[in-house]
Amino acid sequence: MSDALQRLRAIISDVAALRAAEAILGWDQETYMPAGGAEARARHRAVLARLSHERLTSPEVGELLEQLREREGADPDPEDLDAQYIRLARTQYERATKLPSRLVQELTHAASLAKDAWRAAKQASDFSQFAPHLERLVELTIEKAEHLGYNEDIYDALLDLYEPGMTAAEVERVFAALKERLVPLVQQVSEAPQVHDAFLKQHFDPQVQWDFGMDVLRAIGFDLTRGRQDESAHPFTTSFSHGDVRITTRIFPNDWASGFFSTLHEAGHGIHSQGVPAEFYDTPLAWGKSLGISESQSRLWENVVGRSRGFWEFWLPRLARRFPGPLSGVDLDRFYRAINRVERSFIRTDADELTYNLHIFVRFDLERLLVSRRLDVRDLPAAWNAKMQEYLGIVPKKDAEGVLQDIHWSLGAIGYFPTYTLGNVLSVQYYDQAVREHPEIPDEMRRGKFDTLRIWTNQRIHRWGAIFNAVELTRRVTGGPLDSGPYIRYLETKYREIYRL
Amino acid sequence: MSDALQRLRAIISDVAALRAAEAILGWDQETYMPAGGAEARARHRAVLARLSHERLTSPEVGELLEQLREREGADPDPEDLDAQYIRLARTQYERATKLPSRLVQELTHAASLAKDAWRAAKQASDFSQFAPHLERLVELTIEKAEHLGYNEDIYDALLDLYEPGMTAAEVERVFAALKERLVPLVQQVSEAPQVHDAFLKQHFDPQVQWDFGMDVLRAIGFDLTRGRQDESAHPFTTSFSHGDVRITTRIFPNDWASGFFSTLHEAGHGIHSQGVPAEFYDTPLAWGKSLGISESQSRLWENVVGRSRGFWEFWLPRLARRFPGPLSGVDLDRFYRAINRVERSFIRTDADELTYNLHIFVRFDLERLLVSRRLDVRDLPAAWNAKMQEYLGIVPKKDAEGVLQDIHWSLGAIGYFPTYTLGNVLSVQYYDQAVREHPEIPDEMRRGKFDTLRIWTNQRIHRWGAIFNAVELTRRVTGGPLDSGPYIRYLETKYREIYRL
Repeated sequence: MSDALQRLRAIISDVAALRAAEAILGWDQETYMPAGGAEARARHRAVLARLSHERLTSPEVGELLEQLREREGADPDPEDLDAQYIRLARTQYERATKLPSRLVQELTHAASLAKDAWRAAKQASDFSQFAPHLERLVELTIEKAEHLGYNEDIYDALLDLYEPGMTAAEVERVFAALKERLVPLVQQVSEAPQVHDAFLKQHFDPQVQWDFGMDVLRAIGFDLTRGRQDESAHPFTTSFSHGDVRITTRIFPNDWASGFFSTLHEAGHGIHSQGVPAEFYDTPLAWGKSLGISESQSRLWENVVGRSRGFWEFWLPRLARRFPGPLSGVDLDRFYRAINRVERSFIRTDADELTYNLHIFVRFDLERLLVSRRLDVRDLPAAWNAKMQEYLGIVPKKDAEGVLQDIHWSLGAIGYFPTYTLGNVLSVQYYDQAVREHPEIPDEMRRGKFDTLRIWTNQRIHRWGAIFNAVELTRRVTGGPLDSGPYIRYLETKYREIYRL
Repeated sequence: MSDALQRLRAIISDVAALRAAEAILGWDQETYMPAGGAEARARHRAVLARLSHERLTSPEVGELLEQLREREGADPDPEDLDAQYIRLARTQYERATKLPSRLVQELTHAASLAKDAWRAAKQASDFSQFAPHLERLVELTIEKAEHLGYNEDIYDALLDLYEPGMTAAEVERVFAALKERLVPLVQQVSEAPQVHDAFLKQHFDPQVQWDFGMDVLRAIGFDLTRGRQDESAHPFTTSFSHGDVRITTRIFPNDWASGFFSTLHEAGHGIHSQGVPAEFYDTPLAWGKSLGISESQSRLWENVVGRSRGFWEFWLPRLARRFPGPLSGVDLDRFYRAINRVERSFIRTDADELTYNLHIFVRFDLERLLVSRRLDVRDLPAAWNAKMQEYLGIVPKKDAEGVLQDIHWSLGAIGYFPTYTLGNVLSVQYYDQAVREHPEIPDEMRRGKFDTLRIWTNQRIHRWGAIFNAVELTRRVTGGPLDSGPYIRYLETKYREIYRL
């Protein structure tokens, strides 16, 4: 290894340790930290973030990356890990240095104020309290996008932060095809007789919920010697190394499905993180992964597997043994339809598999309008409601259930939302490919076996870490482009059957 | 505040965040980290330790401390927190810079090898496997002591790391008085009819043990909004801020007392940490506290309070309600005698309150001989056994139960052991003083109330953080010197009664 690469690795190894420490402090904060620890924790995390940023953006890193340009080459082989390391380190370095520190500070400060204002505004369902903060954030975000740079569409600069290499035009293309088919499908479903799921809202003992979730975690192959599950207010996944991947869930005594599918969702992320090669950890090879790819892995287990009939052929008898009361007399068909109940509703995070995407379309459209200055923040609530009407056919009565529901914009995270639906699309593209290569997968699932599927995702997806973006990986895995077709067919087939359309 | 002090505070605040992060990673490692996380965790912790060391020992810190000499003054007022900050920062800086980094690395490396060798040697009960490592560690420790500096006794340099300002001569003085009375007392007790405690070795449901421990934690005033208790293989206390103090315990299904007194011991440390002022945290005002003072607080709650008759007047009925099986028919006298059973044994960590000190005398004597080169490592097992015979009147049959039992020396921690017994001595000096000032304390304890005692320790001991060493604090609290008299009287009175001597 060249001296320059060795030196670069040494610096980045320090950055990695600081980032890992910050992640561990974050995990602890959400799981076990007593309330009294909050103030100091914020201070300690801020120092770690500053120190890792200082190291990553030091002039020496810039010089080393210059020296290593030749080693990197123009279009490095994905298997040339040194070249990929340099390429991805450069991405990290440029992203961190392109923004003037003045702007970073202003964004942090504005977001900190905005988050508090957002909470209060949501509480009072009063958008006017949040509007000046959001205006400021949109202005700063536009400035940020200008610094990051883009070809045609300013939105591309923001999207790239979460979905490397993706463009708004490409998202638009995928979403257009989805809208054309999903909006009418949701309309049809909403006119069909509704599925009954009242039996899912009975009392389910939390400890038994937990134990069943752990059984399923073990069965699908989340490795508990290299990870763990805990409880937190908002489920999340975080990883500190190949051998230490943490997921969390949230358990409601009267809503078993919510906690269970949270577990499966985070398990998908966790299995992804456990599948990234050990030697990628603490390096840029594991940083800045496509969120669409990540989401494809969580949605694969949560929905494509976890909300499938085959999965419950095996697991329903086991669940019913644990909850003989609430599930007595519930057969597979009734259960399967209940966990796939579709209902047009106002809140994205409560939405079912099908309508979820429509919530994303609302946000994607509005974000694009905001950052291209075609929509004024003060007109946002009306625009929100119009989009809800357009896609879902329902309009929230108050902003707390509408434009104020999500935390993302108050954090300055504009460009993030589309990755959720890209993940849904990819989850089915990848699953279909896995079944094409291993037609035994659905049968195995019906017998409670998941190794073939999981190992396939390890070998075809996880092992690449951050080396491929969503388009590149999809080409490599399926031989084709990012394509909404399989996902549309999946949803249409599934929900036409469930709703007998 | 002067510019220099402000700048010093800024640097040390970064050091503090790195240290806090390292402590949090350490806590997680002992409590929740999955086995697979060990390798990366060691790497991450090493980076944090190196970065905080680099910052603390940077030339700028040295220059700032030079500029601040005048502000510090010769013998700063304990209430002048800026001056104390500078003084204690200087202590930290000097301690960190006095040792050449070559020596620090050699020590770390030798200790790392020695720890593995010690484990294997203990497993095989074969001292010869450990001897060459200990020889090397003793040589490096002597070199370390020479760099740290001392007046007359080389041991003073090592002791000062754990017990600031303490000298071997002073320890010798205190220990001599203790030996004179405790060695014969243990002898007398061992000849008296033994106390029966078999009922304590029955099955105690772990969850019920945990719940009872939590009740007592709350009652004595460990603040659970600013702290928590978890389980770990080896109980410990760690604190990340005034609002986040963590203790751990270990629960054995067939040995209720072990887990319970661990909880009380760590709770004493925890109450101490929760009593250090918020503004001392993340500064040298909270670093490098006397371990003797710390141990006085754990022993106060574990032994002076927790193994007293008055404490159990209130708690035994409550414990018996939780464990009606094992404790049926056990009256206060029988219970009190059982939890204070004295037995000469080989293992320090299993020793009772009385014989514990004799194990410390063995180690203190041998450490002094080793670092003054009056004892050769190869002669250590024989010397150990001779000392055991001298103080306890028993001799272990194998080195695993003798010279190989403790991890401390394999870590290079020579000079640490005496602080345990100093803590015992201080626990009674401080408790006696508290009762002199608040004669209602024993009565309150009998009614399950602990506020007067706890608040007294807050106001007289904890609030000073690291500002006073053990001798200074004792003078301030009791008006006199470190004095073994009260501790001897306490032990003699208590154990003569229990053993009817």
